Amino acid sequence: MDTKENDSKLFTPGPLTTSLTVKQAMLHDLGSRDTIFINIISYIREKLLELADASPDEYTTVLVPGSGTYAVEATFSTSVPRQDAKILIIENGAYGQRIIKICQALNILYDVISFGETERVQIDLVANKLKLNTYTHVAIIHCETTSGILNPIEEIGQLVYDHGTTKDSTVYIVDSMSGFGAIPVSLRNGHITYLISSSNKCIEGVPGFAFVISKRKHLLTCQGQARSLVLDLYDQYTYMEQSKQFRFTPPTHTMLAFKRALDELEQEGGVQGRARR
Amino acid sequence: MDTKENDSKLFTPGPLTTSLTVKQAMLHDLGSRDTIFINIISYIREKLLELADASPDEYTTVLVPGSGTYAVEATFSTSVPRQDAKILIIENGAYGQRIIKICQALNILYDVISFGETERVQIDLVANKLKLNTYTHVAIIHCETTSGILNPIEEIGQLVYDHGTTKDSTVYIVDSMSGFGAIPVSLRNGHITYLISSSNKCIEGVPGFAFVISKRKHLLTCQGQARSLVLDLYDQYTYMEQSKQFRFTPPTHTMLAFKRALDELEQEGGVQGRARR
Repeated sequence: MDTKENDSKLFTPGPLTTSLTVKQAMLHDLGSRDTIFINIISYIREKLLELADASPDEYTTVLVPGSGTYAVEATFSTSVPRQDAKILIIENGAYGQRIIKICQALNILYDVISFGETERVQIDLVANKLKLNTYTHVAIIHCETTSGILNPIEEIGQLVYDHGTTKDSTVYIVDSMSGFGAIPVSLRNGHITYLISSSNKCIEGVPGFAFVISKRKHLLTCQGQARSLVLDLYDQYTYMEQSKQFRFTPPTHTMLAFKRALDELEQEGGVQGRARR
Repeated sequence: MDTKENDSKLFTPGPLTTSLTVKQAMLHDLGSRDTIFINIISYIREKLLELADASPDEYTTVLVPGSGTYAVEATFSTSVPRQDAKILIIENGAYGQRIIKICQALNILYDVISFGETERVQIDLVANKLKLNTYTHVAIIHCETTSGILNPIEEIGQLVYDHGTTKDSTVYIVDSMSGFGAIPVSLRNGHITYLISSSNKCIEGVPGFAFVISKRKHLLTCQGQARSLVLDLYDQYTYMEQSKQFRFTPPTHTMLAFKRALDELEQEGGVQGRARR
Protein backbone atom coordinates (compact mmCIF):
# COMPACT_ATOMS: atom_id res chain seq x y z
CA MET A 1 0.00 0.00 0.00
CA ASP A 2 1.29 3.47 -0.80
CA THR A 3 0.58 6.56 1.23
CA LYS A 4 -1.25 8.93 -1.02
CA GLU A 5 -2.08 12.41 0.20
CA ASN A 6 -5.63 11.21 0.65
CA ASP A 7 -6.68 7.61 0.24
CA SER A 8 -9.89 7.28 -1.76
CA LYS A 9 -12.88 8.80 0.00
CA LEU A 10 -14.83 6.37 2.11
CA PHE A 11 -18.54 6.31 2.68
CA THR A 12 -18.74 3.52 5.20
CA PRO A 13 -20.08 3.95 7.82
CA GLY A 14 -20.33 7.67 7.22
CA PRO A 15 -17.85 9.71 5.23
CA LEU A 16 -14.37 9.16 6.56
CA THR A 17 -11.39 10.88 5.04
CA THR A 18 -8.26 11.76 6.91
CA SER A 19 -5.36 13.73 5.57
CA LEU A 20 -1.90 12.22 5.45
CA THR A 21 -0.73 14.78 8.01
CA VAL A 22 -3.45 13.65 10.45
CA LYS A 23 -2.25 10.06 10.06
CA GLN A 24 1.40 11.10 10.38
CA ALA A 25 0.61 12.60 13.78
CA MET A 26 0.30 8.97 14.93
CA LEU A 27 3.97 8.21 14.29
CA HIS A 28 4.80 8.99 17.93
CA ASP A 29 4.51 7.00 21.12
CA LEU A 30 3.49 9.14 24.04
CA GLY A 31 2.85 7.77 27.51
CA SER A 32 -0.64 8.46 28.80
CA ARG A 33 0.91 10.25 31.79
CA ASP A 34 3.38 12.25 29.73
CA THR A 35 3.05 16.02 30.17
CA ILE A 36 2.82 16.57 26.42
CA PHE A 37 -0.05 14.13 26.22
CA ILE A 38 -1.80 15.63 29.23
CA ASN A 39 -1.61 19.06 27.61
CA ILE A 40 -3.08 17.64 24.40
CA ILE A 41 -6.01 16.18 26.33
CA SER A 42 -6.72 19.59 27.90
CA TYR A 43 -6.41 21.31 24.52
CA ILE A 44 -8.86 18.87 22.91
CA ARG A 45 -11.40 19.22 25.73
CA GLU A 46 -11.31 23.03 25.56
CA LYS A 47 -11.33 23.25 21.79
CA LEU A 48 -14.43 21.04 21.56
CA LEU A 49 -16.31 23.38 23.90
CA GLU A 50 -15.40 26.27 21.64
CA LEU A 51 -16.64 24.43 18.54
CA ALA A 52 -19.90 23.67 20.34
CA ASP A 53 -20.54 27.26 21.45
CA ALA A 54 -20.51 25.91 25.00
CA SER A 55 -19.20 28.14 27.80
CA PRO A 56 -16.49 26.46 29.91
CA ASP A 57 -18.33 27.84 32.95
CA GLU A 58 -21.37 25.81 32.11
CA TYR A 59 -20.06 22.84 30.09
CA THR A 60 -17.25 20.30 30.18
CA THR A 61 -15.97 17.68 27.73
CA VAL A 62 -15.75 14.02 28.75
CA LEU A 63 -13.64 11.83 26.46
CA VAL A 64 -14.69 8.20 25.91
CA PRO A 65 -12.33 5.68 24.26
CA GLY A 66 -14.16 3.44 21.79
CA SER A 67 -16.65 4.16 19.01
CA GLY A 68 -19.38 6.79 19.07
CA THR A 69 -21.96 4.29 20.28
CA TYR A 70 -19.88 3.72 23.44
CA ALA A 71 -20.30 7.40 24.26
CA VAL A 72 -24.03 7.26 23.53
CA GLU A 73 -24.45 4.32 25.89
CA ALA A 74 -22.23 6.01 28.50
CA THR A 75 -24.44 9.09 28.39
CA PHE A 76 -27.66 7.15 29.02
CA SER A 77 -25.99 4.83 31.53
CA THR A 78 -24.68 7.79 33.53
CA SER A 79 -27.36 10.46 33.19
CA VAL A 80 -30.52 8.40 33.70
CA PRO A 81 -31.35 7.50 37.33
CA ARG A 82 -32.22 3.85 37.97
CA GLN A 83 -35.64 4.86 39.26
CA ASP A 84 -38.31 7.42 38.41
CA ALA A 85 -36.94 8.24 34.96
CA LYS A 86 -38.61 8.11 31.57
CA ILE A 87 -37.11 9.13 28.24
CA LEU A 88 -38.78 10.35 25.09
CA ILE A 89 -36.79 9.13 22.09
CA ILE A 90 -37.43 11.15 18.93
CA GLU A 91 -36.59 8.76 16.11
CA ASN A 92 -36.32 8.97 12.33
CA GLY A 93 -33.66 6.43 11.38
CA ALA A 94 -31.01 3.86 12.30
CA TYR A 95 -29.26 5.90 14.99
CA GLY A 96 -32.51 6.72 16.76
CA GLN A 97 -33.33 3.03 16.70
CA ARG A 98 -29.94 2.30 18.23
CA ILE A 99 -30.84 4.52 21.20
CA ILE A 100 -33.92 2.36 21.69
CA LYS A 101 -31.67 -0.73 21.81
CA ILE A 102 -29.41 0.95 24.35
CA CYS A 103 -32.37 1.79 26.59
CA GLN A 104 -33.55 -1.81 26.34
CA ALA A 105 -30.12 -3.16 27.30
CA LEU A 106 -29.92 -0.74 30.23
CA ASN A 107 -33.51 -1.34 31.40
CA ILE A 108 -34.46 2.29 30.90
CA LEU A 109 -38.13 3.21 30.52
CA TYR A 110 -38.89 5.06 27.29
CA ASP A 111 -41.48 6.30 24.83
CA VAL A 112 -40.75 6.69 21.13
CA ILE A 113 -42.09 9.24 18.68
CA SER A 114 -41.20 8.04 15.18
CA PHE A 115 -40.99 9.81 11.86
CA GLY A 116 -40.19 8.33 8.46
CA GLU A 117 -36.56 7.73 7.50
CA THR A 118 -36.73 10.49 4.88
CA GLU A 119 -38.82 12.83 7.01
CA ARG A 120 -37.58 15.64 9.22
CA VAL A 121 -38.77 15.55 12.84
CA GLN A 122 -41.97 17.63 13.09
CA ILE A 123 -41.84 20.15 15.87
CA ASP A 124 -45.59 20.44 16.48
CA LEU A 125 -45.99 16.69 16.96
CA VAL A 126 -43.13 16.65 19.47
CA ALA A 127 -44.65 19.67 21.24
CA ASN A 128 -47.92 17.82 21.54
CA LYS A 129 -46.25 14.68 22.90
CA LEU A 130 -44.42 16.75 25.51
CA LYS A 131 -47.63 18.53 26.47
CA LEU A 132 -49.46 15.28 27.14
CA ASN A 133 -46.69 13.42 29.01
CA THR A 134 -44.01 13.81 31.64
CA TYR A 135 -40.44 12.95 30.72
CA THR A 136 -37.20 13.33 32.66
CA HIS A 137 -35.08 13.05 29.47
CA VAL A 138 -35.53 13.71 25.76
CA ALA A 139 -33.17 12.29 23.12
CA ILE A 140 -32.75 13.08 19.43
CA ILE A 141 -30.32 12.47 16.55
CA HIS A 142 -28.88 15.64 15.01
CA CYS A 143 -28.21 14.21 11.57
CA GLU A 144 -29.21 10.66 10.61
CA THR A 145 -26.17 9.22 8.81
CA THR A 146 -28.04 7.10 6.28
CA SER A 147 -30.54 9.70 5.08
CA GLY A 148 -28.51 12.81 5.88
CA ILE A 149 -31.66 14.41 7.27
CA LEU A 150 -30.98 17.29 9.64
CA ASN A 151 -33.31 17.59 12.61
CA PRO A 152 -34.29 20.94 14.21
CA ILE A 153 -32.38 20.34 17.44
CA GLU A 154 -32.42 23.94 18.66
CA GLU A 155 -36.19 24.34 18.29
CA ILE A 156 -36.77 20.99 20.00
CA GLY A 157 -34.31 22.14 22.66
CA GLN A 158 -36.51 25.13 23.41
CA LEU A 159 -39.55 22.85 23.84
CA VAL A 160 -37.57 20.56 26.16
CA TYR A 161 -36.37 23.57 28.13
CA ASP A 162 -39.96 24.68 28.68
CA HIS A 163 -41.18 21.11 29.46
CA GLY A 164 -41.98 20.07 33.01
CA THR A 165 -42.89 22.08 36.05
CA THR A 166 -39.64 24.06 36.23
CA LYS A 167 -37.64 25.39 33.29
CA ASP A 168 -34.49 23.48 32.32
CA SER A 169 -35.37 20.51 34.53
CA THR A 170 -35.58 18.04 31.63
CA VAL A 171 -32.34 16.52 30.37
CA TYR A 172 -31.83 16.98 26.62
CA ILE A 173 -29.49 14.52 24.87
CA VAL A 174 -28.37 15.12 21.28
CA ASP A 175 -26.47 12.49 19.29
CA SER A 176 -24.56 14.58 16.76
CA MET A 177 -22.29 11.83 15.47
CA SER A 178 -22.53 12.85 11.81
CA GLY A 179 -23.10 16.55 12.35
CA PHE A 180 -20.72 18.01 14.89
CA GLY A 181 -17.76 19.75 13.32
CA ALA A 182 -19.38 20.35 9.93
CA ILE A 183 -22.80 21.69 10.92
CA PRO A 184 -22.78 24.71 13.24
CA VAL A 185 -24.45 23.92 16.54
CA SER A 186 -24.90 25.98 19.69
CA LEU A 187 -25.30 24.07 22.94
CA ARG A 188 -26.18 27.34 24.58
CA ASN A 189 -29.02 28.18 22.16
CA GLY A 190 -30.24 24.59 21.98
CA HIS A 191 -30.32 24.20 25.78
CA ILE A 192 -28.50 20.90 25.25
CA THR A 193 -27.51 18.95 28.38
CA TYR A 194 -25.39 16.29 26.61
CA LEU A 195 -24.08 16.37 23.03
CA ILE A 196 -22.28 13.28 21.74
CA SER A 197 -19.93 12.95 18.79
CA SER A 198 -16.82 11.05 17.75
CA SER A 199 -13.28 11.49 16.48
CA ASN A 200 -13.78 10.07 13.01
CA LYS A 201 -16.71 11.87 11.49
CA CYS A 202 -16.84 15.54 10.53
CA ILE A 203 -13.72 16.53 12.45
CA GLU A 204 -11.91 13.99 10.26
CA GLY A 205 -9.68 12.33 12.80
CA VAL A 206 -9.17 8.56 12.85
CA PRO A 207 -11.69 6.31 14.66
CA GLY A 208 -11.01 5.25 18.24
CA PHE A 209 -12.63 7.63 20.65
CA ALA A 210 -15.74 9.71 21.18
CA PHE A 211 -16.72 12.59 23.42
CA VAL A 212 -19.67 13.98 25.35
CA ILE A 213 -20.02 17.71 25.87
CA SER A 214 -21.91 17.84 29.14
CA LYS A 215 -23.62 20.45 31.26
CA ARG A 216 -21.42 20.27 34.34
CA LYS A 217 -24.22 21.02 36.78
CA HIS A 218 -26.18 17.97 35.64
CA LEU A 219 -23.18 15.66 35.29
CA LEU A 220 -22.31 16.34 38.93
CA THR A 221 -25.69 14.91 40.02
CA CYS A 222 -24.90 11.56 38.39
CA GLN A 223 -22.51 9.96 40.88
CA GLY A 224 -23.11 6.22 41.24
CA GLN A 225 -25.81 6.10 38.57
CA ALA A 226 -23.87 4.38 35.78
CA ARG A 227 -24.61 0.71 35.14
CA SER A 228 -20.94 0.24 34.23
CA LEU A 229 -17.43 0.96 35.45
CA VAL A 230 -15.86 1.80 32.09
CA LEU A 231 -18.82 3.75 30.68
CA ASP A 232 -19.25 5.97 33.74
CA LEU A 233 -19.02 9.58 32.52
CA TYR A 234 -19.19 10.97 36.04
CA ASP A 235 -16.27 8.85 37.21
CA GLN A 236 -14.22 9.65 34.09
CA TYR A 237 -14.94 13.36 34.53
CA THR A 238 -14.06 13.62 38.21
CA TYR A 239 -10.94 11.47 37.78
CA MET A 240 -9.72 13.59 34.88
CA GLU A 241 -10.44 16.85 36.69
CA GLN A 242 -8.20 15.71 39.53
CA SER A 243 -5.46 13.87 37.65
CA LYS A 244 -5.70 15.35 34.12
CA GLN A 245 -5.54 11.70 32.99
CA PHE A 246 -7.77 8.90 31.81
CA ARG A 247 -8.81 6.17 34.23
CA PHE A 248 -7.77 3.45 31.74
CA THR A 249 -5.16 3.36 28.94
CA PRO A 250 -6.38 5.84 26.30
CA PRO A 251 -5.83 5.47 22.55
CA THR A 252 -2.88 7.88 22.59
CA HIS A 253 -2.06 7.75 18.87
CA THR A 254 -5.69 8.34 17.90
CA MET A 255 -5.74 11.40 20.14
CA LEU A 256 -2.59 12.81 18.54
CA ALA A 257 -4.33 12.44 15.17
CA PHE A 258 -7.43 14.17 16.55
CA LYS A 259 -5.39 17.11 17.83
CA ARG A 260 -3.95 17.50 14.34
CA ALA A 261 -7.43 17.17 12.77
CA LEU A 262 -8.67 20.00 15.02
CA ASP A 263 -5.77 22.17 13.82
CA GLU A 264 -6.67 21.42 10.21
CA LEU A 265 -10.33 22.20 10.85
CA GLU A 266 -9.25 25.59 12.19
CA GLN A 267 -7.06 26.19 9.11
CA GLU A 268 -10.10 25.47 6.95
CA GLY A 269 -12.02 28.25 8.72
CA GLY A 270 -13.59 26.21 11.52
CA VAL A 271 -17.05 24.70 11.43
CA GLN A 272 -18.33 27.48 9.15
CA GLY A 273 -15.51 26.79 6.70
CA ARG A 274 -16.15 23.04 6.68
CA ALA A 275 -19.90 23.57 6.39
CA ARG A 276 -19.25 25.52 3.17
CA ARG A 277 -17.27 22.57 1.78
CA MET B 1 8.86 15.72 17.44
CA ASP B 2 11.03 13.47 15.30
CA THR B 3 10.25 9.90 14.43
CA LYS B 4 13.01 7.81 15.90
CA GLU B 5 13.11 4.09 15.23
CA ASN B 6 11.79 3.66 18.74
CA ASP B 7 10.67 6.52 20.94
CA SER B 8 12.00 6.22 24.48
CA LYS B 9 10.63 3.20 26.31
CA LEU B 10 7.52 3.87 28.33
CA PHE B 11 6.56 2.32 31.60
CA THR B 12 3.15 3.88 32.04
CA PRO B 13 0.76 2.18 32.46
CA GLY B 14 2.69 -0.96 31.66
CA PRO B 15 5.56 -1.17 29.22
CA LEU B 16 4.55 0.25 25.86
CA THR B 17 6.98 0.37 22.99
CA THR B 18 5.97 0.21 19.39
CA SER B 19 8.32 0.04 16.44
CA LEU B 20 8.23 2.72 13.78
CA THR B 21 7.01 0.14 11.28
CA VAL B 22 4.03 -0.70 13.50
CA LYS B 23 3.14 2.99 13.64
CA GLN B 24 3.66 3.41 9.90
CA ALA B 25 1.04 0.72 9.31
CA MET B 26 -1.46 3.39 10.46
CA LEU B 27 -0.74 5.66 7.49
CA HIS B 28 -3.68 4.16 5.59
CA ASP B 29 -7.39 4.76 5.69
CA LEU B 30 -9.36 1.57 5.23
CA GLY B 31 -13.13 1.44 5.38
CA SER B 32 -14.46 -0.92 8.04
CA ARG B 33 -16.33 -2.84 5.31
CA ASP B 34 -13.37 -2.96 2.93
CA THR B 35 -12.36 -6.49 1.91
CA ILE B 36 -8.74 -5.87 2.89
CA PHE B 37 -9.83 -4.79 6.35
CA ILE B 38 -12.22 -7.72 6.72
CA ASN B 39 -9.38 -10.10 5.86
CA ILE B 40 -7.16 -8.42 8.45
CA ILE B 41 -9.83 -8.91 11.11
CA SER B 42 -10.03 -12.62 10.29
CA TYR B 43 -6.26 -12.92 10.31
CA ILE B 44 -5.99 -11.25 13.73
CA ARG B 45 -8.72 -13.43 15.22
CA GLU B 46 -7.09 -16.63 13.98
CA LYS B 47 -3.55 -15.63 14.87
CA LEU B 48 -4.57 -14.85 18.46
CA LEU B 49 -6.02 -18.35 18.86
CA GLU B 50 -2.72 -19.78 17.67
CA LEU B 51 -0.74 -17.67 20.17
CA ALA B 52 -3.06 -18.85 22.94
CA ASP B 53 -2.76 -22.56 22.11
CA ALA B 54 -6.52 -22.52 21.62
CA SER B 55 -8.05 -24.81 19.03
CA PRO B 56 -10.33 -22.99 16.54
CA ASP B 57 -12.79 -25.85 17.02
CA GLU B 58 -13.16 -25.00 20.67
CA TYR B 59 -12.31 -21.28 20.92
CA THR B 60 -13.06 -18.01 19.13
CA THR B 61 -11.67 -14.49 19.40
CA VAL B 62 -13.98 -11.56 20.12
CA LEU B 63 -12.50 -8.12 19.45
CA VAL B 64 -13.51 -5.21 21.69
CA PRO B 65 -12.70 -1.60 20.74
CA GLY B 66 -11.53 0.43 23.75
CA SER B 67 -8.99 -0.28 26.47
CA GLY B 68 -8.34 -3.63 28.11
CA THR B 69 -10.71 -2.84 30.97
CA TYR B 70 -13.58 -2.55 28.46
CA ALA B 71 -12.96 -6.17 27.48
CA VAL B 72 -12.77 -7.25 31.12
CA GLU B 73 -16.12 -5.60 31.85
CA ALA B 74 -17.60 -7.04 28.63
CA THR B 75 -16.56 -10.54 29.71
CA PHE B 76 -18.25 -10.29 33.10
CA SER B 77 -21.26 -8.43 31.70
CA THR B 78 -21.81 -11.13 29.06
CA SER B 79 -20.76 -14.36 30.75
CA VAL B 80 -22.38 -13.97 34.17
CA PRO B 81 -26.14 -14.65 34.33
CA ARG B 82 -28.24 -12.03 36.12
CA GLN B 83 -29.43 -14.64 38.60
CA ASP B 84 -27.97 -17.62 40.45
CA ALA B 85 -24.35 -16.71 39.79
CA LYS B 86 -21.49 -16.16 42.19
CA ILE B 87 -17.87 -15.42 41.32
CA LEU B 88 -14.71 -16.14 43.23
CA ILE B 89 -12.19 -13.35 42.55
CA ILE B 90 -8.61 -14.37 43.29
CA GLU B 91 -6.84 -11.07 43.98
CA ASN B 92 -3.27 -9.95 44.59
CA GLY B 93 -3.07 -6.41 43.24
CA ALA B 94 -4.59 -3.46 41.40
CA TYR B 95 -6.08 -5.40 38.47
CA GLY B 96 -7.75 -7.92 40.73
CA GLN B 97 -9.22 -5.01 42.67
CA ARG B 98 -10.52 -3.56 39.42
CA ILE B 99 -12.47 -6.78 38.80
CA ILE B 100 -14.12 -6.25 42.19
CA LYS B 101 -15.16 -2.74 41.08
CA ILE B 102 -16.57 -4.11 37.84
CA CYS B 103 -18.64 -6.71 39.72
CA GLN B 104 -19.92 -3.97 42.02
CA ALA B 105 -20.95 -1.77 39.08
CA LEU B 106 -22.68 -4.72 37.39
CA ASN B 107 -24.38 -5.96 40.58
CA ILE B 108 -22.64 -9.31 40.41
CA LEU B 109 -22.36 -11.41 43.57
CA TYR B 110 -18.77 -12.29 44.48
CA ASP B 111 -16.35 -13.58 47.07
CA VAL B 112 -12.72 -12.47 47.21
CA ILE B 113 -9.65 -14.43 48.22
CA SER B 114 -6.81 -11.93 48.68
CA PHE B 115 -3.05 -12.32 48.73
CA GLY B 116 -0.42 -9.66 49.33
CA GLU B 117 0.64 -7.42 46.44
CA THR B 118 4.06 -9.04 46.36
CA GLU B 119 2.79 -12.55 47.01
CA ARG B 120 2.00 -15.21 44.44
CA VAL B 121 -1.48 -16.74 44.64
CA GLN B 122 -1.28 -19.86 46.85
CA ILE B 123 -2.84 -22.88 45.23
CA ASP B 124 -3.69 -24.77 48.42
CA LEU B 125 -5.64 -21.83 49.85
CA VAL B 126 -7.62 -21.48 46.63
CA ALA B 127 -8.25 -25.24 46.61
CA ASN B 128 -9.63 -25.02 50.13
CA LYS B 129 -11.88 -22.07 49.24
CA LEU B 130 -13.26 -23.98 46.28
CA LYS B 131 -13.83 -27.08 48.39
CA LEU B 132 -15.89 -25.18 50.95
CA ASN B 133 -18.00 -23.09 48.54
CA THR B 134 -19.96 -23.22 45.30
CA TYR B 135 -19.06 -20.81 42.53
CA THR B 136 -20.30 -20.49 38.97
CA HIS B 137 -17.25 -18.42 37.92
CA VAL B 138 -13.64 -17.99 39.05
CA ALA B 139 -11.52 -15.00 37.99
CA ILE B 140 -7.79 -14.37 38.27
CA ILE B 141 -5.09 -12.00 36.97
CA HIS B 142 -2.30 -13.70 35.03
CA CYS B 143 0.37 -11.09 35.73
CA GLU B 144 -0.24 -8.11 38.01
CA THR B 145 1.21 -5.10 36.12
CA THR B 146 2.49 -3.20 39.15
CA SER B 147 4.29 -6.04 40.90
CA GLY B 148 5.01 -8.20 37.84
CA ILE B 149 3.97 -11.25 39.87
CA LEU B 150 3.01 -14.22 37.76
CA ASN B 151 0.12 -16.33 39.06
CA PRO B 152 -0.15 -20.10 38.50
CA ILE B 153 -3.11 -19.88 36.12
CA GLU B 154 -2.84 -23.40 34.72
CA GLU B 155 -2.77 -25.08 38.13
CA ILE B 156 -5.71 -22.96 39.30
CA GLY B 157 -7.42 -23.84 36.02
CA GLN B 158 -7.21 -27.53 36.89
CA LEU B 159 -8.81 -26.84 40.28
CA VAL B 160 -11.60 -24.85 38.63
CA TYR B 161 -12.12 -27.62 36.08
CA ASP B 162 -12.59 -30.12 38.89
CA HIS B 163 -14.83 -27.76 40.94
CA GLY B 164 -18.57 -28.29 41.14
CA THR B 165 -20.68 -31.34 40.55
CA THR B 166 -19.71 -31.85 36.90
CA LYS B 167 -16.25 -31.31 35.39
CA ASP B 168 -15.75 -28.12 33.37
CA SER B 169 -19.04 -26.60 34.56
CA THR B 170 -17.36 -23.63 36.25
CA VAL B 171 -16.41 -20.64 34.08
CA TYR B 172 -12.75 -19.66 34.40
CA ILE B 173 -11.83 -16.08 33.47
CA VAL B 174 -8.18 -15.02 33.16
CA ASP B 175 -7.16 -11.37 32.75
CA SER B 176 -3.81 -11.65 30.97
CA MET B 177 -3.42 -7.99 30.09
CA SER B 178 0.28 -7.81 30.90
CA GLY B 179 1.14 -11.40 30.10
CA PHE B 180 -0.34 -12.55 26.83
CA GLY B 181 2.11 -12.42 23.95
CA ALA B 182 5.24 -12.48 26.10
CA ILE B 183 4.47 -15.28 28.55
CA PRO B 184 3.52 -18.62 27.02
CA VAL B 185 0.00 -19.63 27.97
CA SER B 186 -2.13 -22.58 26.94
CA LEU B 187 -5.89 -22.11 27.10
CA ARG B 188 -6.23 -25.81 26.46
CA ASN B 189 -4.01 -26.87 29.37
CA GLY B 190 -5.37 -24.17 31.68
CA HIS B 191 -9.02 -25.07 30.95
CA ILE B 192 -9.61 -21.35 30.46
CA THR B 193 -13.09 -20.26 29.38
CA TYR B 194 -12.26 -16.59 28.73
CA LEU B 195 -8.81 -15.00 28.40
CA ILE B 196 -8.62 -11.22 28.07
CA SER B 197 -5.77 -9.09 26.75
CA SER B 198 -5.19 -5.91 24.77
CA SER B 199 -3.45 -4.52 21.70
CA ASN B 200 -0.89 -2.39 23.48
CA LYS B 201 0.87 -4.60 25.97
CA CYS B 202 3.15 -7.52 25.15
CA ILE B 203 2.12 -7.79 21.50
CA GLU B 204 3.36 -4.19 21.20
CA GLY B 205 0.64 -2.69 19.08
CA VAL B 206 -0.79 0.75 19.77
CA PRO B 207 -3.59 1.16 22.34
CA GLY B 208 -7.21 1.20 21.16
CA PHE B 209 -8.70 -2.25 21.31
CA ALA B 210 -8.73 -5.43 23.35
CA PHE B 211 -9.78 -9.00 22.78
CA VAL B 212 -11.34 -11.96 24.55
CA ILE B 213 -10.42 -15.49 23.56
CA SER B 214 -13.58 -17.36 24.43
CA LYS B 215 -14.72 -20.96 24.63
CA ARG B 216 -17.36 -20.92 21.91
CA LYS B 217 -19.61 -23.44 23.64
CA HIS B 218 -19.97 -21.20 26.68
CA LEU B 219 -20.21 -17.92 24.75
CA LEU B 220 -23.18 -19.33 22.83
CA THR B 221 -25.10 -19.75 26.11
CA CYS B 222 -24.82 -16.01 26.85
CA GLN B 223 -27.43 -14.49 24.56
CA GLY B 224 -29.28 -11.59 26.20
CA GLN B 225 -27.19 -11.69 29.38
CA ALA B 226 -25.07 -8.57 28.85
CA ARG B 227 -25.99 -5.48 30.84
CA SER B 228 -24.91 -3.37 27.86
CA LEU B 229 -25.36 -3.02 24.11
CA VAL B 230 -21.77 -2.08 23.25
CA LEU B 231 -20.08 -4.46 25.68
CA ASP B 232 -22.06 -7.53 24.62
CA LEU B 233 -19.53 -10.17 23.56
CA TYR B 234 -22.24 -12.56 22.39
CA ASP B 235 -23.79 -9.96 20.12
CA GLN B 236 -20.39 -8.88 18.76
CA TYR B 237 -19.45 -12.51 18.13
CA THR B 238 -22.61 -13.57 16.32
CA TYR B 239 -22.69 -10.35 14.27
CA MET B 240 -19.08 -10.82 13.19
CA GLU B 241 -19.54 -14.48 12.37
CA GLN B 242 -22.34 -13.53 9.98
CA SER B 243 -21.02 -10.30 8.52
CA LYS B 244 -17.24 -10.53 9.14
CA GLN B 245 -17.60 -6.97 10.44
CA PHE B 246 -17.85 -5.01 13.67
CA ARG B 247 -21.23 -3.80 14.88
CA PHE B 248 -19.89 -0.27 15.40
CA THR B 249 -17.07 1.70 13.76
CA PRO B 250 -13.84 -0.08 14.74
CA PRO B 251 -10.47 1.64 15.28
CA THR B 252 -9.26 0.67 11.79
CA HIS B 253 -5.81 2.28 12.02
CA THR B 254 -5.10 0.68 15.39
CA MET B 255 -5.97 -2.69 13.93
CA LEU B 256 -3.61 -2.19 10.99
CA ALA B 257 -0.87 -1.49 13.54
CA PHE B 258 -1.83 -4.61 15.48
CA LYS B 259 -1.63 -6.77 12.35
CA ARG B 260 1.88 -5.45 11.79
CA ALA B 261 2.79 -6.03 15.47
CA LEU B 262 1.69 -9.66 15.15
CA ASP B 263 3.95 -10.03 12.10
CA GLU B 264 6.88 -8.59 14.06
CA LEU B 265 6.16 -10.89 17.01
CA GLU B 266 6.39 -13.82 14.62
CA GLN B 267 9.68 -12.53 13.18
CA GLU B 268 11.03 -12.40 16.75
CA GLY B 269 10.27 -16.09 17.17
CA GLY B 270 6.74 -15.83 18.55
CA VAL B 271 5.83 -15.83 22.22
CA GLN B 272 8.85 -18.00 23.08
CA GLY B 273 11.16 -15.52 21.36
CA ARG B 274 9.65 -12.54 23.11
CA ALA B 275 9.69 -14.34 26.46
CA ARG B 276 13.47 -14.74 26.05
CA ARG B 277 13.84 -10.97 25.52
